[in-house]
Amino acid sequence: MTDARDTGLTLDPKYDAAGLITAVVTDAATGAVLMVAHMNADALAATRERGEAVFWSRSRQALWHKGETSGHVLKVRDIRIDCDQDAVWLLCDPAGPACHTGAPSCFYRRIGADGLEPVA
Amino acid sequence: MTDARDTGLTLDPKYDAAGLITAVVTDAATGAVLMVAHMNADALAATRERGEAVFWSRSRQALWHKGETSGHVLKVRDIRIDCDQDAVWLLCDPAGPACHTGAPSCFYRRIGADGLEPVA
Repeated sequence: MTDARDTGLTLDPKYDAAGLITAVVTDAATGAVLMVAHMNADALAATRERGEAVFWSRSRQALWHKGETSGHVLKVRDIRIDCDQDAVWLLCDPAGPACHTGAPSCFYRRIGADGLEPVA
Repeated sequence: MTDARDTGLTLDPKYDAAGLITAVVTDAATGAVLMVAHMNADALAATRERGEAVFWSRSRQALWHKGETSGHVLKVRDIRIDCDQDAVWLLCDPAGPACHTGAPSCFYRRIGADGLEPVA
């Protein structure tokens, strides 16, 4: 199906039943996927206003300004939205590791034939 | 919270209530995010076996071998999983446009100050 949401130039996010869209963060310099999180309308608005990534924490049920305590904010260089407007892609400059484990990216393990393998 | 799922080397996807995890596809050559979709356990297994992206279509409630009809398959070069194992990142070689609109990437529009703008 292709409709106005898919091809038009009106921002019309398709929030799910919980009021959320998916947010994918990449490192604008390297192209690495750093993390995947979620945004509600307030988080998207806050991200656009602030120029730093603000998500919706599903576990805490609260806005989550990434790096607010750690200092590892994600400075947003560009925001793109996908065809059916249920996902956004944030191209960011990370101020530190994106992952709570201390890894630069949350995707620090490969799915190998026999389990997970750390990515060099 | 950091536990075995976050730091260990055992594949243990954290499927949501619908049995799904998020799948982010990037172009292995350019780093562009091509699309975001979902996988259940069968889709992840099929992707690993086939070496081409297989998702779960939430609209059709069926396995979806991307490109099966269009020929625009996504050849998988690497699969990574994030810290809490509720999202995978597929690094792919796309055989054609990833988006049903014909755009190379589903993320072909930028969120600008006054709405959406096509990305060159």
